[in-house]
Amino acid sequence: MQLIKKGKTKDVYALEDGNILLKFKDDATVGEDGRLDPGGNKVGATIQGLGLSSLRISKYYFEKINAAGILTHYIDSDLEAGTMTVRPATIFGKGVEIICRLKATGSFIRRYGDYCTEGQDLDFYVEVSLKDDERGDPMITPDALAMLGIMSRSEYEEVRTLTKQITRIIRDDLKAKGLTLYDIKLEFGRIDGKVALIDEISSGCMRVYKDDQWLHTVELEKYFS
Amino acid sequence: MQLIKKGKTKDVYALEDGNILLKFKDDATVGEDGRLDPGGNKVGATIQGLGLSSLRISKYYFEKINAAGILTHYIDSDLEAGTMTVRPATIFGKGVEIICRLKATGSFIRRYGDYCTEGQDLDFYVEVSLKDDERGDPMITPDALAMLGIMSRSEYEEVRTLTKQITRIIRDDLKAKGLTLYDIKLEFGRIDGKVALIDEISSGCMRVYKDDQWLHTVELEKYFS
Repeated sequence: MQLIKKGKTKDVYALEDGNILLKFKDDATVGEDGRLDPGGNKVGATIQGLGLSSLRISKYYFEKINAAGILTHYIDSDLEAGTMTVRPATIFGKGVEIICRLKATGSFIRRYGDYCTEGQDLDFYVEVSLKDDERGDPMITPDALAMLGIMSRSEYEEVRTLTKQITRIIRDDLKAKGLTLYDIKLEFGRIDGKVALIDEISSGCMRVYKDDQWLHTVELEKYFS
Repeated sequence: MQLIKKGKTKDVYALEDGNILLKFKDDATVGEDGRLDPGGNKVGATIQGLGLSSLRISKYYFEKINAAGILTHYIDSDLEAGTMTVRPATIFGKGVEIICRLKATGSFIRRYGDYCTEGQDLDFYVEVSLKDDERGDPMITPDALAMLGIMSRSEYEEVRTLTKQITRIIRDDLKAKGLTLYDIKLEFGRIDGKVALIDEISSGCMRVYKDDQWLHTVELEKYFS
């Protein structure tokens, strides 16, 4: 088992059978102000049990999404070892994040606050940003993705459709738990040339509210144990 | 003649016949570093003759674009008075800027420099930003424009098509002068419910190069006098 990459929240290992092992860590990302922020780029906090919590939620949702017939990289997971086994995938460019928004908050308000209010309904609004810490994860349009050779127009259309399907599954599931999904960040790659959901699906990738209260990672996890 | 608005580079007056008079000023916008920057938000320099220069280039291109059968707000201009008469238009939201890029430079490189190099060809790449100094003129997608009630999907498609047509006219004209257009910033509005080109078309709205050298406002103006 060979270490390929030490990530912000996960370490990545190559398995001998060609698959990939993800080892979840207890590190959380924070924003510029040092507060926990799923959209943040810096690792600024270690939260006891966070890795296992992220893994448990990921397992829960990947199994639901696989069952819905959507291609993902997920194979299985080992909660005791804190690991997830996935199929190898190639990423788009150096990594692209797809955000799906159901309610206006965070950077959407910072950008468009002159035209909307916190918590305003957004109809499965999809936007894309490049994973590029140095440049502040800049937003990018489908046209630029195609022009810069990162993602073709037809791949983007598939990513967009899958993003809405997946967000709907997670939104409905959280709703049944009495929770409200505000937004979610997904990552896709190619497996055998097909678009597939990759990375993780944890509290660190979504903003979830109980009534008017944002649920932190650890609080959200209680709904999945 | 009633003053409606004091703008960064133009003052706006209402005429008695219902049209609008734009009085061009000698103020130029600069970027955060204080250098002249057509994309900048601050007025940081007064350049003798800039107003007249902007007006002369605007007149030149609006006449060409009108002649091509594209709807614009332009009626006529008075070079001695430094004024342009235009039809009244309503803007999209609180103002939207359409950027068309033929070569990668400026904020495109700042955002996507990991995937392209300065001066790289871009195929009439269109992007949109909100005029919102406070929020740094944030980029916005066609989906968000529609969702926030700023511009409908069909209006965007028309704006996009017109932007490419207009940019092609200006690109070809500059080419005949031995100059290269890198990018241009246009503004559209609605006149009698139809999409029309508004604002000005001056050196302050475009980046033009002579060989590898960026031509400042005043240098560019020499090609039009």
